[in-house]
Amino acid sequence: MTSTLINDCFLRACRREPTPHTPVWLMRQAGRYLPEYRATRDKAGSFMGLATNADFATEVTLQPLDRYPLDAAILFSDILTVPDAMGLGLSFATGEGPKFEKVLRDEASIQALQVPDLNRLRYVFDAVTSIRRALHGRVPLIGFSGSPWTLACYMVEGGGSDDYRHVKTLMYSRPDLMHRILDINAQAVAAYLNAQIDAGAQAVMLFDSWGGVLADGAFQRFSLDYTRKVTALLKRQHDGQSIPVIVFTKGGGQWLEEIADSGADVVGLDWTTDIAKARQRVGSRVALQGNLDPFVLMAPPEVVAREAAAVVDRFGPPQRPDGTWDGHIFNLGHGISLHTPPESVTALVDAVHQRSAQLRKP
Amino acid sequence: MTSTLINDCFLRACRREPTPHTPVWLMRQAGRYLPEYRATRDKAGSFMGLATNADFATEVTLQPLDRYPLDAAILFSDILTVPDAMGLGLSFATGEGPKFEKVLRDEASIQALQVPDLNRLRYVFDAVTSIRRALHGRVPLIGFSGSPWTLACYMVEGGGSDDYRHVKTLMYSRPDLMHRILDINAQAVAAYLNAQIDAGAQAVMLFDSWGGVLADGAFQRFSLDYTRKVTALLKRQHDGQSIPVIVFTKGGGQWLEEIADSGADVVGLDWTTDIAKARQRVGSRVALQGNLDPFVLMAPPEVVAREAAAVVDRFGPPQRPDGTWDGHIFNLGHGISLHTPPESVTALVDAVHQRSAQLRKP
Repeated sequence: MTSTLINDCFLRACRREPTPHTPVWLMRQAGRYLPEYRATRDKAGSFMGLATNADFATEVTLQPLDRYPLDAAILFSDILTVPDAMGLGLSFATGEGPKFEKVLRDEASIQALQVPDLNRLRYVFDAVTSIRRALHGRVPLIGFSGSPWTLACYMVEGGGSDDYRHVKTLMYSRPDLMHRILDINAQAVAAYLNAQIDAGAQAVMLFDSWGGVLADGAFQRFSLDYTRKVTALLKRQHDGQSIPVIVFTKGGGQWLEEIADSGADVVGLDWTTDIAKARQRVGSRVALQGNLDPFVLMAPPEVVAREAAAVVDRFGPPQRPDGTWDGHIFNLGHGISLHTPPESVTALVDAVHQRSAQLRKP
Repeated sequence: MTSTLINDCFLRACRREPTPHTPVWLMRQAGRYLPEYRATRDKAGSFMGLATNADFATEVTLQPLDRYPLDAAILFSDILTVPDAMGLGLSFATGEGPKFEKVLRDEASIQALQVPDLNRLRYVFDAVTSIRRALHGRVPLIGFSGSPWTLACYMVEGGGSDDYRHVKTLMYSRPDLMHRILDINAQAVAAYLNAQIDAGAQAVMLFDSWGGVLADGAFQRFSLDYTRKVTALLKRQHDGQSIPVIVFTKGGGQWLEEIADSGADVVGLDWTTDIAKARQRVGSRVALQGNLDPFVLMAPPEVVAREAAAVVDRFGPPQRPDGTWDGHIFNLGHGISLHTPPESVTALVDAVHQRSAQLRKP
């Protein structure tokens, strides 16, 4: 497998190296807003039918790249594959979020929890290898997982939640059991991401989608400490290349300094954070990824272009007065909505590329 | 109606005056976690049956005060009474959130929107007068409303939402229409709160429950600017007493300085913000209210007591080295859960009173 990339803009921005424009990719870029995705999903029969078949996963991963000049691909999968491999039984009912057949609330089932056999996740690594081959070096491939805390939320709640009552009850009442779950999750996530790296992932991202529901103090102890355990266990070099690690905590704007110290190379920002202030706070220590409100894409293309350019402008020219570079990877502040008109993405990608190239001119 | 209060600790803390202990009340303290509330609700038949009857509203408002030594009462009502009075048709299906019969999405219905006749909200003012009388000066009575932005979210979405897609689509696509809704909401909310003050409310609170779903920039233009319009129109003196204004933006931790400049006397904090840092940022300009995670109350009483005392300690002694006082009103970071064991509240209130009295000893 060759490491030569035609477009390495994304990896260079992750490493805070010079780039001719700001690279852009979108969380959930391979998804239901694209008619070609819906067609493949119909063939596969279900979301997990897509994710567990390397051919289908490869097909949908490449679809957005064929439509838009995006600067990175991301593995088509779900953040919850690890607890599924632990035997909790993941499913997706149509029009609803993920559901687990078993929930983890009593001491006996928590004590019985183990790091899963990675062979049960073979379908993911096969998909990574297949996608990487199909990309032919066009752009880098990002692997990912849910964070230990975010996985624990789903494992204890059994699915999404409005209030995270069960997982917080466990956390405040039996912190010892919560720490046991998180410790196993951290080991499992690290092994899982390392296997994705071995299979060909050129960067990895931890989605701490529910870190922001935690109280200050609890966030550090129950989410960030386990993010740090994962990053400490990750392979940071593979095949002669460094592997950047992205940490994205939705609702984490108040903790950026601490997240930047978690071992991440790149910190993801949701749309509530001013990226200019974020750059001042941490942008010379880590690259920043983000952070347009995904619902800007519901507006007419000229509004999309203006709002996307405004984020590029707020970050500002990436080169600092001392000649060193900060890194910005443009993204949404959360996954793209299934209601998004596909032409909005055209307007977004073009605006980011054009405006950021202009900003680099002396 | 006399203005003499037996316990004026809450109002003194709002004004950053000395208090013997930290006052405490809880958002949604009159609610479903209390068996006596459920009994009254069964008599009334529905939530709106309670809220529209002054006797029932008085009864449930006083229930938590009879159980716990709380330092304030809050009007029993809903944040959505104003759009209901605008003719949108509010209802509460059992086990679900609020729903409006009509939604506000097309230009014609937005152009037709008007500040409602306050007579349609007479039941609220009657409840305020009745509760104030029944309190006999035990503690002050807080009136409240949803903020212009939060009301607009419900008016456009037609109820709660996971993603606020409709209201954000309108905001990004037709900001002119969004500003029209918000302008009318601001006028209506100000008139509504002033009528509550005339009826006997001794402090008022704006619940900006959904301010935190906005992007930085949009928050200032579409939420905070209209909070400011409301505070500018409010009566700040009534019957010889100053009327403190509390502004609570859930998810607003990144914008505390700006919220503190909105005309608020008190800024409410959700549980994600470190109250020690919040005090450093804005605590000498406004009092702070908050901010325990409501799900701490699911833990055993000794954990509740420890975590509540920890918030008191993080705020620290309210008297500053120069002899002036900062203000802290203890509260949860969000409404109390209906699953809360009532004995947890006993542990919480006692811990706050005891620890904060200790902290004041030289």
